[in-house]
This record gives sequence, C-alpha cells and structure tokens, in this order.
Amino acid sequence: MSTTVGILGGGQLARMLALSGAPLGLRFLVMDTVADACAAQFVPLLQADYTDQHALAEFASKVDVVTFDFENVPAESGQWLASQRPVFPSPRALAVAQDRLAEKTLFNELGIATPRFSAVLSRADLERALCDIGTPCILKTRRLGYDGKGQFRLKSEADADAAWAALGGQAETVGLILEGFVAFQRELSVVAVRGRDGEFRAWPITQNWHHHGILSASLAPANCSEALSATALQHAKSVADALQYVGVFALELFERDGELLANEMAPRVHNSGHWTIEGAECSQFENHLRAVLGLPLGSTDARGLSCMLNWVGELPDARGALSIAGLHWHDYGKSPREGRKVGHATCVGDSMAALRRQLEEAGRRLGREAQVAPVLAALG
Amino acid sequence: MSTTVGILGGGQLARMLALSGAPLGLRFLVMDTVADACAAQFVPLLQADYTDQHALAEFASKVDVVTFDFENVPAESGQWLASQRPVFPSPRALAVAQDRLAEKTLFNELGIATPRFSAVLSRADLERALCDIGTPCILKTRRLGYDGKGQFRLKSEADADAAWAALGGQAETVGLILEGFVAFQRELSVVAVRGRDGEFRAWPITQNWHHHGILSASLAPANCSEALSATALQHAKSVADALQYVGVFALELFERDGELLANEMAPRVHNSGHWTIEGAECSQFENHLRAVLGLPLGSTDARGLSCMLNWVGELPDARGALSIAGLHWHDYGKSPREGRKVGHATCVGDSMAALRRQLEEAGRRLGREAQVAPVLAALG
Ligand SMILES: Nc1ncnc2c1ncn2[C@@H]1O[C@H](COP(=O)(O)OP(=O)(O)OP(=O)(O)O)[C@@H](O)[C@H]1O
Ligand SMILES: Nc1ncnc2c1ncn2[C@@H]1O[C@H](COP(=O)(O)OP(=O)(O)OP(=O)(O)O)[C@@H](O)[C@H]1O
Ligand SMILES: [Mg+2]
Ligand SMILES: [Mg+2]
Repeated sequence: MSTTVGILGGGQLARMLALSGAPLGLRFLVMDTVADACAAQFVPLLQADYTDQHALAEFASKVDVVTFDFENVPAESGQWLASQRPVFPSPRALAVAQDRLAEKTLFNELGIATPRFSAVLSRADLERALCDIGTPCILKTRRLGYDGKGQFRLKSEADADAAWAALGGQAETVGLILEGFVAFQRELSVVAVRGRDGEFRAWPITQNWHHHGILSASLAPANCSEALSATALQHAKSVADALQYVGVFALELFERDGELLANEMAPRVHNSGHWTIEGAECSQFENHLRAVLGLPLGSTDARGLSCMLNWVGELPDARGALSIAGLHWHDYGKSPREGRKVGHATCVGDSMAALRRQLEEAGRRLGREAQVAPVLAALG
Repeated sequence: MSTTVGILGGGQLARMLALSGAPLGLRFLVMDTVADACAAQFVPLLQADYTDQHALAEFASKVDVVTFDFENVPAESGQWLASQRPVFPSPRALAVAQDRLAEKTLFNELGIATPRFSAVLSRADLERALCDIGTPCILKTRRLGYDGKGQFRLKSEADADAAWAALGGQAETVGLILEGFVAFQRELSVVAVRGRDGEFRAWPITQNWHHHGILSASLAPANCSEALSATALQHAKSVADALQYVGVFALELFERDGELLANEMAPRVHNSGHWTIEGAECSQFENHLRAVLGLPLGSTDARGLSCMLNWVGELPDARGALSIAGLHWHDYGKSPREGRKVGHATCVGDSMAALRRQLEEAGRRLGREAQVAPVLAALG
C-alpha cells in the first residue's frame, strides 16, 4: 500500500515536497485555508481552517503521517493531530521554533551566541529593554513573523514610540522581543535534516542576501573556513538533538568578525535550501520526507556550486533565461502580489567561473543585475 | 494565464512529464482509458476511450496544446485534435513512427542503414520474405508493438508455421514485417529533441541492455568513438528534420562491427532517456515540454556518468538502496504486474569508478546482481 503524507499548508513548500516525493511513490494531501493554494495544482486539497475539528479528523483519517509547510498552525491542532498520527517535527519542537524568545533562550543554553535580546510585554518593558540592549535594535513579534513581517527597526531611543505604535498591540497576543541590531558581514544558514533515529546530516553552508527583509539570493556552498563551517554545523546539530527534531530545518546565522550569532531556526524546509533541488545529491524536500517517514537519509553533498535567485512579487519573463545552460526555473503557479514569493531560479555551475557567467547572463537577460550583484561580488 | 498541456495517455511518461513541467508553471490534463492511470495521482484525468468524440472535444477545450505519453492513439483522434489545438509531434510524424515499415523505409531513403526487412501481408509473403532475408530473423507486427510484444523470432525456416500461428492473424489489422536478426555487439539509442523552430539537440548516446525484450539497463554517455557518435546524432537529426518532428524522440540503433543499423524510432520521451532527469542539465521530459510549447530548449549536456536500472514486474525494496549516495529512486505508483514497468533507479557518478561502486552496491543490496552485471562489464 502506498503511503500518504499529510501536509499542513499548501504553498510552494508543500508543492515542492510533493513534486520530490512523487518519485518515492508517495501520495499527498494538503490542508490549507485557501482554495487556490498552489500545491493543490498537483495534489488533493482539504480546504478548511486549521482549527476546524471536523476537517482535522478527516485529514488525519486520510493520511499516514503529518508534516508542515506552514509552521504557524495553532498548537492545539498540532497536538490533536499528534494524538492520531505521527507528526514531524513534533508539536513540542515546533512550539520552541515558533517563538523567537524560546528559541534564542535555547540557543544560549546550548552555548550558541545570539544577538542580545529581551522579552517585551509592555511599553515600560520596551524602555527597560532599550536601556539594556541599546540602539540600533529591532522590535519583533515573538511569533507569526515571516519574510521580515512583524518587525520594526529602531535607530535610536526616539523611535520607541513609533515602534510601540506599530507593534505594541501585539505584545499581549503573540508577544514581542527586542533584539540588538547586528552589523554582520554575512548572513549564513545551515539547512540540515535529522532522522527519526537521530541521524543528522547537513547540506553545505549557504550564504544569503535579503532585500526588504525577504530572501533575495543564496549561494552554496558558501566560502567558509573549515572551522566556521564546523561550528555552524555543530550548532545545528546541538539544536536538533536538544529538540529531538525530526525533518529538515534551517538555522539562520549572522557572521560578525568571524563569530556566529544565531538569529532563528525555521522548523521546515527553507527558502535558503531551494538550491538543493539541483545543487545537491538529495534535495531538502526529498530528505525531509525521508526523515518524516523513517527512511534512510540521502546524501547532502553538493553537486557543483549553486546560486538561487528568489522571485518576489512577480516572475521575470522566463523565456530570456531558459536557454542559459545550468539555470533551472521554478514557477510556483501563484498569481503575482507585492512581497509574495512566486518562484525562484537556481543556477548550478561546475566552477566559480561557470556560475559567474550564468549569473551575469541571467542578470542581464532578466533585468535583475542588482539582484545578482552581491552574489557576483562574493564570488570575487 | 497559465498554460495547460494535454497528454494522451496517463502512464509513467505522462507522470514524469507533469512532474518536470510543474516547475515551469505548467498545468496538465491527461486522457486515459483507465481510472488508475498513474499520472492521475498528480494531475487531473479525463477517463475515456481515445475514440470518444465527446471526450476528445472536452479534452481539447481544456488544454492549450496536446502531446503523447502513448503513441498508439488512433490516427483519426490525433487528426481531429490537431484541427482544434496544436498537436506535437504532428499526426503525420506519428503515423510514420508508429509503423515499422514506414519508418524503416524512411531511414533507408535518408541513407540510414537498417536490418533487412520486408512487408508481410500473407503466408505466401512470409515464405518469399524468408527466402529473401534468410534466418535467423524476426517477424513483428508493423504497429502497436512495445516492450518486445508482437514479435516472433525464427531460428530457421522450420519456424515459419509457428510464427504465422502467433502473428498471422494480425497481418490484415496492424500489418507484419520480417526483419533480419542482427547479431549486434551493442544496442545504442539517441534521445533527441527538435523545437518548433527546428532547433535540434541530442543527449549523449546511451547504451542499452534488454531482458526478455524489455529495456533492463541504460548507460550514458556510452563509450563511443567521436565518429560513431557523430553518425548516430546525424541520423537522428536527418530523421527529425525529414518528419519536421517537434518534441523528444528516441532513435534505437544496433551497433554491429562498427556499423550502425536503425531499429526503430519512438516518437516520445523514451525509457532510455530516463537517466536525463538527474544525469543531464535538462531532462528529456522538460525539453519535450519546452519543444512542444515553443520555449527555448535546455542544455542536453550530461552531468557525470549515469546508469538507469529498470524495475519490471515489481519494485525491489527501496530501503536497501536509498542510502546509496548518487542513487535516485523512481516509483511510478503502479501496482505490480508481470512485465509491467513499475519504476526505475538512476545512479549518477562523477567517474566510472564512482558509478561502478554505486552499481555494485545497488546490485547487492537489491538482489539485482544479474541486472547490473552487463553494465559493470561495459564499464570495464
Ligand atoms: N538582530 C538583527 N540584526 C541585524 N539584522 C537582522 C536582525 N534580525 C533580522 N535581521 C535582518 O532581517 C532579516 C529577516 O529577519 P528574521 O529572519 O528575523 O525574520 P523572518 O520574518 O523570520 O524572515 P524569514 O522568513 O526570511 O526568515 C534577517 O535575515 C536579517 O537580514
Ligand atoms: N532485427 C533485430 N535483430 C536483433 N535484435 C532485435 C531485432 N529487433 C528487435 N531486437 C531486440 O528486441 C528488442 C525490442 O525490439 P523493438 O525495439 O523492435 O521492439 P519494441 O516492442 O518497440 O520494444 P521497445 O518498446 O523496448 O522499444 C530490441 O531492443 C532488440 O534487443
Ligand atoms: Mg529569518
Ligand atoms: Mg525498441
């Protein structure tokens, strides 16, 4: 009998999970609140609210194992599903990773440095935290933030009122955290997978660039010293082991003067791991499914050097780029909308020179010179 | 607006077309006679007979372009669809490729050598053809054969009665052809693609092994001299140009004493091109869609050295092989049945030594030592 994987959330992550799971003979069911969830173009959709008990029961009855495309599923729904079917990552791991305060606290407990941070429950807390942490800093919602949403940057204490006006209303619902602003040289991420049996594997370190708080480009393997890379992987392993995490996750890191500060962990396949589809032996999507199903994990070795370019808001015209050898197009089948991730492209080359040529060509043909510029600079 | 590709036939070829077309933002509709067509696990299915005029009209109304997973769709249905929507490859090209007599005649016209052959319409024709061609030889149905079905091998003239008893009944329906048996050293295939604008690209030559008339293993790029490879590619190009062919096709060749004899052409993505999913820059599936849609073709360069192992009848237990780095599993989601293609695995290595190690390991872990043996021998 074939195995059906239930995915909570039917966006591009669910879509790419399904497309990489099909060759394993898997079937899928996604649950999403909207009818036009893009994964539903290729797999059956159960459209319902994540708190709809009837729908959750139907979902559970139709799947063999449950995982997530969207980590902000209400905790009670995750817990109820876990009483019916194996759920990976576990609701407990998810609860920590969903909460910027809990995850940073865990990081510190594990000896992993973070930006300075302080919980903010009230306007008075914000004053105290500002004194403690200093400026510049960032006020963030503890939960439900993504793509830089739910964040307010403070240049000086004078910005406190504006920050409170923007986010204070959420202090009592999702909670707030004030973080010191890190003048990092680079952003790196570790995309890693941990199996049901505790086996741990990580893809090579990825370097990331953001634009308006949204991931814009990723380069992998990043140009890292062995020592830095080993530290980053060790951090990821500590976190995964501490949470008895099962599945793929990403640990986002700031590199400042050779030191690594952990920003957050994403408890799911991650945008900075999309390059693994063509750029690694086994992709983050396939390995997530293998982990969740208790299958042997696949190799996380890179194949060549990859750069992923994110398409945010709208897709460039593919036609110009499709003839570039080594470039792989990913259109998520979503309609355009400002700030929405609608697709990406991954360039894979055998050498830095080959990747450079592809990126220059892609930048020119797609009118995305500015987007590729920082990657070209990093390629030297 | 998104483009919907209609595929006649909903088997594993349609399934792999859909899985590789999803990242291009395409949607799909397959038409098949059976409800459990395996492509329908991931794309909508219109279940109907290929001659059902209502169904064909519905199909045409829902798709932007039509192609095939199954080339034996009745000619009138293809022609009618072509009056409604672009159909690639064209019904005319399909008609030639479907008929062993027509295709071999074309090959000879283009200066491409073939085994000796002769049309057989009656028992008397068979005698005459046997005199002409000699034994050993093979009596084949002209149309509707696949996986070695519709063939009878004659060792001597004494087998003529048995051959006629087996296939004579089809002489008037699908026609028969008698072919000289070629004592080839190797079987090779050229998988190639021709765009709407006539652009032609071919993947590196593939070497194939059959077992009981069904493809068992493919190795690519095959170890070929430049001259042999150039001749094979030139043959494929001549045929494609002559037919104004659009899409992917395979030209199957026998190599005997350094000479190439064309066996047949398959007017669709082909089992001997499955290795291109992981082993080439752009797979046969993606390039077929690009061709059919008039998009720029992708690079047909190989990435490393690949060997595809076909799973016929039933799947080996994947678990044993999933941990082999470089091995990629493909389960078509079909139920087991004797002689049925239910999946394949592709091993990709950076070197002959790496591929050899993977194949030895896969053979051992899956109990398929005999299947990998000829490939290991070819790897030397
Ligand atoms: N403390 C900080 N110091 C400096 N820059 C920061 C800090 N926190 C966030 N940023 C910047 O903002 C980006 C988005 O922040 P963060 O990862 O916390 O938010 P997010 O909403 O989870 O985004 P994503 O979904 O892309 O991970 C970071 O990748 C980084 O570029
Ligand atoms: N004339 C021949 N001489 C020697 N071997 C032959 C000949 N014709 C066919 N064979 C063998 O039988 C196999 C299948 O034959 P053929 O390709 O004609 O049939 P098919 O039914 O179209 O198979 P497939 O669908 O696998 O291509 C060939 O690949 C070859 O191994
Ligand atoms: Mg982040
Ligand atoms: Mg054949």
